[in-house]
Amino acid sequence: MPADAKPPHNATLAAFGERVRARRHELGWSQEVAADHIGIHWTHLGQVERGQRSSRIENVLKIAAGLDTTPGRLLDGLPSE
Amino acid sequence: MPADAKPPHNATLAAFGERVRARRHELGWSQEVAADHIGIHWTHLGQVERGQRSSRIENVLKIAAGLDTTPGRLLDGLPSE
Repeated sequence: MPADAKPPHNATLAAFGERVRARRHELGWSQEVAADHIGIHWTHLGQVERGQRSSRIENVLKIAAGLDTTPGRLLDGLPSE
Repeated sequence: MPADAKPPHNATLAAFGERVRARRHELGWSQEVAADHIGIHWTHLGQVERGQRSSRIENVLKIAAGLDTTPGRLLDGLPSE
């Protein structure tokens, strides 16, 4: 099964990934460009955007900073499990 | 070496833990009471407050909700590694 076809791990990560992707699109960046700004590999970013990988606090901060936004804008109001 | 004497893993987690502890103190709660509201074990909360344990997104949401605050208030502006 290709990665795109795999389901998100849970509703929280699905919604977080959608926000990350939406912010990346606002910036007009490819996954490769965004991952470079964030400082992670683009395959890692792809997994985050698809809700297939959770992130620890340290990486949430890197993702927010790399996408020129805040952790709060990416996390506040997300559905809990 | 007792747990209290162990250093935090990094500056990000140290600062996050301080915010969690400060919010718990605002509420006037013990670690046991706060952990019960959050839905994690009090030893887990203690590790978080001491910066000795990172948290994934799902647990950040639980911690914020359990302490009647938002992920943004706990994460925005934290020092990055």
